[in-house]
Amino acid sequence: MTSSSTAFLTDHYELTMLASALRDGTADRPCVFELFARRLPTGRRYGVVAGTGRFLDSLAGFRFGEEELAKLEASDVVDRATLDWLADYRFSGDIVGYPEGELYFPGSPVMTVSASFGEGVLLETLALSILNHDSAVASVAARMSSAANGRRLIEMGSRRTHEEAAVASARCAYLAGFTSTSNLEAGRRYGIPTAGTCAHAFTLLHDSEEDAFRAQIDALGVQTTLLVDTYDISRGIETAIRVAGPKLGAIRIDSGDLGVLARQAREQLDALGARETKIVVSGDLDEYAIAALRAEPVDAYGVGTSLVTGSGAPTAGMVYKLVEVDGRPVAKRSSHKESRGGRKAALRRYKATGTALEEVVYRADGPGPERHDHDRELQIPLVRAGQVVPGLPTLDDGRQRLRQALVSVPWEGLALSGGEPVIPTVFA
Amino acid sequence: MTSSSTAFLTDHYELTMLASALRDGTADRPCVFELFARRLPTGRRYGVVAGTGRFLDSLAGFRFGEEELAKLEASDVVDRATLDWLADYRFSGDIVGYPEGELYFPGSPVMTVSASFGEGVLLETLALSILNHDSAVASVAARMSSAANGRRLIEMGSRRTHEEAAVASARCAYLAGFTSTSNLEAGRRYGIPTAGTCAHAFTLLHDSEEDAFRAQIDALGVQTTLLVDTYDISRGIETAIRVAGPKLGAIRIDSGDLGVLARQAREQLDALGARETKIVVSGDLDEYAIAALRAEPVDAYGVGTSLVTGSGAPTAGMVYKLVEVDGRPVAKRSSHKESRGGRKAALRRYKATGTALEEVVYRADGPGPERHDHDRELQIPLVRAGQVVPGLPTLDDGRQRLRQALVSVPWEGLALSGGEPVIPTVFA
Repeated sequence: MTSSSTAFLTDHYELTMLASALRDGTADRPCVFELFARRLPTGRRYGVVAGTGRFLDSLAGFRFGEEELAKLEASDVVDRATLDWLADYRFSGDIVGYPEGELYFPGSPVMTVSASFGEGVLLETLALSILNHDSAVASVAARMSSAANGRRLIEMGSRRTHEEAAVASARCAYLAGFTSTSNLEAGRRYGIPTAGTCAHAFTLLHDSEEDAFRAQIDALGVQTTLLVDTYDISRGIETAIRVAGPKLGAIRIDSGDLGVLARQAREQLDALGARETKIVVSGDLDEYAIAALRAEPVDAYGVGTSLVTGSGAPTAGMVYKLVEVDGRPVAKRSSHKESRGGRKAALRRYKATGTALEEVVYRADGPGPERHDHDRELQIPLVRAGQVVPGLPTLDDGRQRLRQALVSVPWEGLALSGGEPVIPTVFA
Repeated sequence: MTSSSTAFLTDHYELTMLASALRDGTADRPCVFELFARRLPTGRRYGVVAGTGRFLDSLAGFRFGEEELAKLEASDVVDRATLDWLADYRFSGDIVGYPEGELYFPGSPVMTVSASFGEGVLLETLALSILNHDSAVASVAARMSSAANGRRLIEMGSRRTHEEAAVASARCAYLAGFTSTSNLEAGRRYGIPTAGTCAHAFTLLHDSEEDAFRAQIDALGVQTTLLVDTYDISRGIETAIRVAGPKLGAIRIDSGDLGVLARQAREQLDALGARETKIVVSGDLDEYAIAALRAEPVDAYGVGTSLVTGSGAPTAGMVYKLVEVDGRPVAKRSSHKESRGGRKAALRRYKATGTALEEVVYRADGPGPERHDHDRELQIPLVRAGQVVPGLPTLDDGRQRLRQALVSVPWEGLALSGGEPVIPTVFA
């Protein structure tokens, strides 16, 4: 179904712009493109960078092979000279950017591509697709992690999003602190722990709930998670412990007033001697529902729809703008969109206590702002002369980075209520 | 990056349920699974079925090859007996369902899978991923098509969604009446016409707007679309016509008050003799903005973010439920979710004038409701004994089907304002 080339995961106009620029000789002009968000989704206090790793993977496959060239020729998208140029295309420029798991704010230069116009413009759509999707999911996943306050989070949203977006979403959830995913491909592709409980269908398949529980225990052992709400929850729990014994790993409740039910379930389990049996809850949980269950005896949350759809913010709204041509800053002159030309870098300024103070975005070709003791530069080299820099941070590094970054956020930034970005962006 | 097998695009628990069912002999029980939506997204008057074609394509690749089996074994997801069963797995059941482009309503049996439990349960996640994503996008695309009222719609949302979801979204948009897409892969994979205009970067690359326009005209001819709002729109239009002459294909305006600007642009173009030059508008358009521009001299809309994110309803919320085991109906007994056991079929009842009256969902194993003159059965055979039925409707057939279906909707159903499903679902 999918070609091994990622080069067609782009917009038609990237290629026609290239064709036009090749024709008048401007395609070779050295350019700088900047990927950033003008603003955060309404009410959000921070964003989380995600997708950089996937983008760098896909860059390797961004090649126009015979199949792609034949299709472009047949559909008359570009001329012969452009086809020849594309046949030889290998990205040879430089890319720097925020590592995955880093926070971003309005105007943060999340990724900066330095290359000829032709080489750089071709990457626009693919870079934005990946960063916009992944950062949207990671940003809400981080809010959920904060809300869960150390309790386990299981990503189970695959069925509510495109089948490949599901794999990427699982990756973003893990980056942002989720414990595991239900998605097997994410397990294979990214080494994320996979987990599963059971569906109502399995109980309904059997002549009785007891038969179903017995079958599951026989196959998977008592450490499994039994779904107890197909018929009557308290009878379900009673049956579960009768079949599995008090060493049952967990029960899952997928419907009803989860707070009340979790409390009742805990009491019942304790009374049955199953004090170590965990309680997993699921069912349209978002970050607010997760937080609302903090006071209840819930051990793990299964989260689906609201995670993979960004809980109201399904895309990060990042843009990819040409900011420099031949060393001179350029910017669209527009009435309502703030645009700043020139290649930029960024640092985050902290208090001595480690709390973030502000995001300082500055022109990369100048001396930049006066440095303070607790400044931290935010961009790292990702690609040099077309080669991915060796030893880049791994997914687990990103997970660690985000955990630390969230500790540094002023406390009001971790509140789920809407507000302004928790630190201001200062353009120096 | 992606394996040719689609078998891992599923949830861990589908496999552990299979393992448990194989162990106690219930995996072979003949079952019926039903894919349906309990409700439409809030305020929506109808849904559009999409993704069936993609699901049937992916079914062919749903195989556990050596790579998949090795990974399952290494990560200890299932036992040896299950691995052996999976190695031989070929779906051998029957599937019927609503064809793509058909409308659906709460409870419509959009897809019905008849197979052993083991064979049917494995398809749950993949079927839902595809149908939920694609139907969400097609449903909003249909609203946009209605709002555009015959004007051209160009899909250009790739950069705002996962790179593979972008390809599927372009397909859904085309199904729902969009004229073309910017996504090259959608052009290649599904034969959808691709189109492109130009980005601000191309103008900024050049020493002047005039240089940029000249380069584009030289490369692409005067039938191209020039983006005129990088600096000053009226000067941009003046330059565009000076460079291209009055035969210029189109101009695009991507920012500002599009209604006012389109009117001014039309007057200016007409005054310059460019009466045939079209006006394309873009920039965060949703179905409401499209409708609001109906009175303005707009020839085509470029639509991105709101399309690929479902304009507030990013997933269709369909579920895949076991409704029959060994010929007897089964259903979860739950307090707040309506579940109806038994294999169902559906017909749509029309007035003699061709206006839809109601969706009649009935038990497929009974005589069904009394038939009226203008009833139309809604499910068609999709897979028989594991083989995709030959001659299924094409994407263009679906496009035609939806166009006709929207004509049959009671007029209030095409209003964009929120409300109940435009026809009731009657369970006979």
